[in-house]
Amino acid sequence: MSDQLNDEQLFCALADLAREVLANPRHNDDPVVNWASPEDLVASFSTTVGLDFADHAPAHSVDQVLAAAQQVVEWSVHTSHPRFFNQNFAGPDPLAVAGDWLGAALNTTNATFEAAPVFTLMEAALLNKLAGLAGFPTKSDIPPGLFCPGGSLATLYALQLARHRQQPDLTTAGASTEPLAIFVSESGHYAAEKSAVLLGLGTNAVIKVATDTEGAMLPEALAAAIENTPRSPLAVIATAGTTVTAAFDPLEPLADLCHEHNIWLHVDGCYGGSALFSPQQRHRLAGVERADSMVWNLHKMMGMTQQCTVLLVRRPEQLSACFSTNADYLFQPDKLFGDYDSGDRTFQCARRVDALKLWLAWKAHGDHGFTARIDHAVAMADHARSIIKESQGALAAVADTGFTNVVFVWVPPELRPFDLGSLKPENQKQLHQLAPAIKARMQQAGDALLGYQPVNGLNTFRLLIMNPAVTPTDVEATLGRLAYHAQQAWEQAKA
Amino acid sequence: MSDQLNDEQLFCALADLAREVLANPRHNDDPVVNWASPEDLVASFSTTVGLDFADHAPAHSVDQVLAAAQQVVEWSVHTSHPRFFNQNFAGPDPLAVAGDWLGAALNTTNATFEAAPVFTLMEAALLNKLAGLAGFPTKSDIPPGLFCPGGSLATLYALQLARHRQQPDLTTAGASTEPLAIFVSESGHYAAEKSAVLLGLGTNAVIKVATDTEGAMLPEALAAAIENTPRSPLAVIATAGTTVTAAFDPLEPLADLCHEHNIWLHVDGCYGGSALFSPQQRHRLAGVERADSMVWNLHKMMGMTQQCTVLLVRRPEQLSACFSTNADYLFQPDKLFGDYDSGDRTFQCARRVDALKLWLAWKAHGDHGFTARIDHAVAMADHARSIIKESQGALAAVADTGFTNVVFVWVPPELRPFDLGSLKPENQKQLHQLAPAIKARMQQAGDALLGYQPVNGLNTFRLLIMNPAVTPTDVEATLGRLAYHAQQAWEQAKA
Repeated sequence: MSDQLNDEQLFCALADLAREVLANPRHNDDPVVNWASPEDLVASFSTTVGLDFADHAPAHSVDQVLAAAQQVVEWSVHTSHPRFFNQNFAGPDPLAVAGDWLGAALNTTNATFEAAPVFTLMEAALLNKLAGLAGFPTKSDIPPGLFCPGGSLATLYALQLARHRQQPDLTTAGASTEPLAIFVSESGHYAAEKSAVLLGLGTNAVIKVATDTEGAMLPEALAAAIENTPRSPLAVIATAGTTVTAAFDPLEPLADLCHEHNIWLHVDGCYGGSALFSPQQRHRLAGVERADSMVWNLHKMMGMTQQCTVLLVRRPEQLSACFSTNADYLFQPDKLFGDYDSGDRTFQCARRVDALKLWLAWKAHGDHGFTARIDHAVAMADHARSIIKESQGALAAVADTGFTNVVFVWVPPELRPFDLGSLKPENQKQLHQLAPAIKARMQQAGDALLGYQPVNGLNTFRLLIMNPAVTPTDVEATLGRLAYHAQQAWEQAKA
Repeated sequence: MSDQLNDEQLFCALADLAREVLANPRHNDDPVVNWASPEDLVASFSTTVGLDFADHAPAHSVDQVLAAAQQVVEWSVHTSHPRFFNQNFAGPDPLAVAGDWLGAALNTTNATFEAAPVFTLMEAALLNKLAGLAGFPTKSDIPPGLFCPGGSLATLYALQLARHRQQPDLTTAGASTEPLAIFVSESGHYAAEKSAVLLGLGTNAVIKVATDTEGAMLPEALAAAIENTPRSPLAVIATAGTTVTAAFDPLEPLADLCHEHNIWLHVDGCYGGSALFSPQQRHRLAGVERADSMVWNLHKMMGMTQQCTVLLVRRPEQLSACFSTNADYLFQPDKLFGDYDSGDRTFQCARRVDALKLWLAWKAHGDHGFTARIDHAVAMADHARSIIKESQGALAAVADTGFTNVVFVWVPPELRPFDLGSLKPENQKQLHQLAPAIKARMQQAGDALLGYQPVNGLNTFRLLIMNPAVTPTDVEATLGRLAYHAQQAWEQAKA
């Protein structure tokens, strides 16, 4: 049975476990994940408290729950392991985790100054700082943006702002029947489609614009798409750091086109926005200061825990015009400092304090520490690129934007030197099917985690580097293990 | 300058601070909040690291950042204090906090089985358990719902599911031009309006249905509203626990009407859904099992940290039909156990692991522990009601649903016995202006935090009870201090 003393004991044990995860992160040849099937997991947890809940679920003992929590750690993916290269995020900065913990302990909502006096001011300070880095205006009394739960929702809100500018009756009368168009590159994020559906526009409203071979939008293709659509152009979503190749759309010519046609320019910098921290890399976003809105996920490259997303806007007064409902039970005009309340400028009501972790980590690291993080990631990606170049054809780059994604294939000896264009269809099919087999072997061995995805019809590996703990040895070992498993999988496939 | 050793030292100090917040929560006559104006806060933080960021923000020392974190605690609202009665949430269950911490340490996204094997199964287990409590079907292979970042977004998604059922071409062609109607009671949450705006329907689509004097929707008023609208009925949002009075709309007759007219029934149980944990209280939601969808915030009554929201759905297969985009870089059909991936059934891409904290706390407390939490809250509200009844007219109930909200006014001696209906306009105005003055005094003194909001044109106090640490003494002290400040404010207002 659960009682006060047991709860205290369990709390302490769980808190110690959480600290332990951070204090001694898995590294070197430790497994990134102990691979288990769903059935394995069910069987494992059945030795402690069971994964499911019975109809009259009992209270379990401190020891049992603690053992279950240890199983959670045991069977989870260790994203802090420097050989986790799987996604556009990685293990968190311990200082961000500590900030997250403190925010959870103080558990409040960031919607009102009354409930979150310090956090309200922190949000404003961070939004102003980030807006300054992007070259957005910061002189308004209203903070130049919002914290949002993730990049997809921030993109949704940005498109709604764009629609509201075009259709000011939207908030009361609803959207007009005019068919609208949203332009995004073929390599852009699916948040464009998801948002178009939720806004009631439908995926037909999303016009995919052609890219160059690296994945950056072609301005002349955008110009043609704008000319050719019978729909009324609503917004261009320019991607600053695509998910697969980390391509940056050329923002200056896109901004020119948007200006010429009076189209809202939204920059999806979820991933690549953090290049603004680095004097060496910020040229990739040249022109971002001309955008109407920008989304930036600090939980990707900057080691914040899930989630830490900001939507920056050029004209902050549009936020209340678009989102306000003036709920009188919450945003009382007659309470103390109610004009600081942020909740009526966004869609959410209660909102987790995502600002604190970023604020603390930034105060500790300074701008310089954030710059170093980006530059280290690029340096490690450069190291991977040099290994690929020197692999005598065993590994071949498929796209290369020079940023933190390394996109490549393993090439069987028979197919070296690799040339995607002249690959026979049956070989392309073989190689396409090989990647999942290689990935599965690496995952089951726990050697490393890295993703694959189709690029030009061929499953292609992608090393994504975010974690400052990644060393040259990690990169070498990962590519080495990949080549090893690839050779095995290839021989098995041929046999 | 920030370096590895400093980071470790700072992490440990911050983690200790977070534990300290939970280990020694403020209580009794400790201040709930140390009141400070924005200017006070700026001045305070300027003694450590400053609230804002300079253009070239320096790295601060461990001591300075730690001192700043201590200021965060010092100036924050202590929602764990048993005299925080301000909102539909309160200080968290320490076990939920520990679960949240562990999730942050393991930092991953719940979108794919690959990145979140354990958490994917936990989400499914919890969704099935909660759906079972609500009487929703749980036999599908697909989990009967989603975890969402908050109740407003869950309501948005539910309305989108409703629209998709009515307009199956929605996802590609966009919404039809048919004007739709969403019915919600006058006491329902503003998420209805916000969602209608975001979906492109506009607030005109939201039809407010009259309630009884406690705030519960009148079924005959709903029937009339459905008959009278020229719009096509889309959904009824029934509120199970309104924000102000905790009124429960009568679900059985509402379900009858929805069935008769083929309208989607969505139950907003963000607040009151947790009544389902208590055999004594679950009758308030009788009929919920007939709904098409239901949202339930476990971060309100159940002490989970911000946020822990579930959207339950009757027909889980509608989720992918409505939200899927089949992004091939993430939801590869050829990877291991990809059919367990949850990310393509919802709007968000990366998603914080909100399930772990609920799972751990529930395993430790059992169903019985969750029941006790609700019953204790109602018992403490009953205690407040009895004090009001015995106050010889100094306090007067304004609405009373018998649940965990106590809605009342303080009555000046000259106006006792209180009768809102026969109050002279000038007295009503005086009393209306008195509430903010009382609240400000209590807030500045740190005695307690509780909200006020207009009910029938009169600012009315609301004691919201969630925290199992609330004792009869806390309730008595809070009402006593309120009466004291009220008398002072009244005398000042008259002077």
